[in-house]
Amino acid sequence: MTIKVQSYAAPAVKSKLSPLQVERRDPRPDDVVIEVLYCGICHSDLHQVNDDWGGSIYPMVPGHEVIGRVLSVGPAVKRFKVGDQVGVGCMVDSCRDCGACKKGLEQYCENKSTLTYNDRDRRDKMPTYGGYSEKIIVTEAFVLKIPDGLDLKGAAPLLCAGITLWSPLRHWKVAKGSQVAIVGLGGLGHMGLKLAKAMGAEVTLFSRSPGKEADARRLGAQHIVISTDQKQMDAVKGRFDLIIDTVPYAHDMNPYLATLALNGSLVVVGYLGNVEPSLNTVPLILGRKAVAGSVIGGIPETQEMLDFCGKHGVVSDVEVIKIQDVNEAYKRMLKSDVKYRFVIDMASLKG
Amino acid sequence: MTIKVQSYAAPAVKSKLSPLQVERRDPRPDDVVIEVLYCGICHSDLHQVNDDWGGSIYPMVPGHEVIGRVLSVGPAVKRFKVGDQVGVGCMVDSCRDCGACKKGLEQYCENKSTLTYNDRDRRDKMPTYGGYSEKIIVTEAFVLKIPDGLDLKGAAPLLCAGITLWSPLRHWKVAKGSQVAIVGLGGLGHMGLKLAKAMGAEVTLFSRSPGKEADARRLGAQHIVISTDQKQMDAVKGRFDLIIDTVPYAHDMNPYLATLALNGSLVVVGYLGNVEPSLNTVPLILGRKAVAGSVIGGIPETQEMLDFCGKHGVVSDVEVIKIQDVNEAYKRMLKSDVKYRFVIDMASLKG
Repeated sequence: MTIKVQSYAAPAVKSKLSPLQVERRDPRPDDVVIEVLYCGICHSDLHQVNDDWGGSIYPMVPGHEVIGRVLSVGPAVKRFKVGDQVGVGCMVDSCRDCGACKKGLEQYCENKSTLTYNDRDRRDKMPTYGGYSEKIIVTEAFVLKIPDGLDLKGAAPLLCAGITLWSPLRHWKVAKGSQVAIVGLGGLGHMGLKLAKAMGAEVTLFSRSPGKEADARRLGAQHIVISTDQKQMDAVKGRFDLIIDTVPYAHDMNPYLATLALNGSLVVVGYLGNVEPSLNTVPLILGRKAVAGSVIGGIPETQEMLDFCGKHGVVSDVEVIKIQDVNEAYKRMLKSDVKYRFVIDMASLKG
Repeated sequence: MTIKVQSYAAPAVKSKLSPLQVERRDPRPDDVVIEVLYCGICHSDLHQVNDDWGGSIYPMVPGHEVIGRVLSVGPAVKRFKVGDQVGVGCMVDSCRDCGACKKGLEQYCENKSTLTYNDRDRRDKMPTYGGYSEKIIVTEAFVLKIPDGLDLKGAAPLLCAGITLWSPLRHWKVAKGSQVAIVGLGGLGHMGLKLAKAMGAEVTLFSRSPGKEADARRLGAQHIVISTDQKQMDAVKGRFDLIIDTVPYAHDMNPYLATLALNGSLVVVGYLGNVEPSLNTVPLILGRKAVAGSVIGGIPETQEMLDFCGKHGVVSDVEVIKIQDVNEAYKRMLKSDVKYRFVIDMASLKG
């Protein structure tokens, strides 16, 4: 038995999204059935629709920044009840048994976590469908609580963009007085400014182009450094404990290495591919610096971030759209023409 | 006033080394005057003689793995007395005032530490001359104690090769049960095997060529992985907490990234230059892995290592030569024809 749910889907590779009924599983005892209220649009939605990383499954219902309300719960569900505000991020399951899962780092599951869409359920092997949909059905262990008072539209991007920045900020132990820099001011970068600021860090934005100063300051940056201006780069030489690089394409990382402090780390979260131009080891060796990577975050740290955001009133800056405008939004996203994240009001699906 | 000391020096770039009297400073109140007994030969001696890194000062007396005996001490010297066994490593001074120096990380001195040779003294601006010399004069703060019972010939390479491996092993918190791999079996690599083993780690050697198995096991490796054998590489996928890469030339680091565990680090200590072929960020991001660098070690950690080596009986495997054979030793070093470090018996200088 399955449930038919109205969704927006890409029927085939590189195709436009259009309405489609898809079949979701009948709820299992540990499942939470969620009415989707808002769903953020992530760059990776477009990458997967276009099969940029290979292995895409069609029809594809994207969306892994899901905010909703609980419609029903299975008899084994303990932490949620009908009417609760909940979130679902990039994962809907994992092996729950490997070293990473046991540490609450399901994003690094040795047996690969189950992605919210473009993947297959571990138990029944049905395709997973994301949040561009009226309903989503997720095992309790991968459902997040959304704190009261948090703006629901702005909370949606926390589930991917937010946790992608939060996890390295926490892992690299950012605290009051830490020197943190964020490279790039997009969906990821703007969350980096907000979260690092709220954690008490002194926050710098690296940007290639001027004109972002006022926005960057409003979002939490105390300093803006134009990375193409050698004088400005020299002025921050050796400064940063942590740089989070959100740029989604190949770019020269060497200039940023010079701005790391002793023992500092440059953490790449936006670009999957070869580091070109190539990295030079001299600054790494002579300053015990590191280039590292990080992907989203585990379920416990995602809940921790949501609670933190509830307490500090941190949400994403969003532009709310109707689902019917999703294809246009993808085009604008490619041109970075969004401040700073599109969020779909899923009520529009019924319209 | 200066003191004339018999030495072996390179009179000019790329020239052979030959006997030369050089002038060292008259001892200052905080100086220790040391009779050099043994001096190790480091790859970087040859690099600097050849001016591979630019800025070399000639005549050059190389040598920064110095073991000696105290001949006299200045009136301000507190920790040493005539007759003490002492060591001098790669540095003879630093600013002692910056953040790094205050943490005992003089190797990362923000104002650049003073190198044992091929540099200039911070106070009198005289050139520094290394350990291929009958005597060396060093401020007390940069002189190390050599524990009783440690073989002096074998102890010499601890001052550079040893500390170069010890510092990352400690910084990355290697302990009993840690999974450690060493890439390359030379002067640095063989110290990595010995030290990691003595620290209680499970130690693997990555080698490009077979035939090193027996030696590697004797030195401390429990496992030997031929890095050109994909099957062997696959068998250690995701295993290592720390890989220390001692290879002194450009090489593909990507295969090693796959063998790092979640949160693992590949630490480059042997190669200064561009990472080519270029690094791929995918394993970094999907396993929160890091590529880092490290250089020698600070004075406190060098003393800590020497004390550890005294307790565990760890010294370098050396081939002792006469100073008259240093040019031949350089040639053999280039062919990796040494197990595993040349050490000059400085008594030969009088011969």
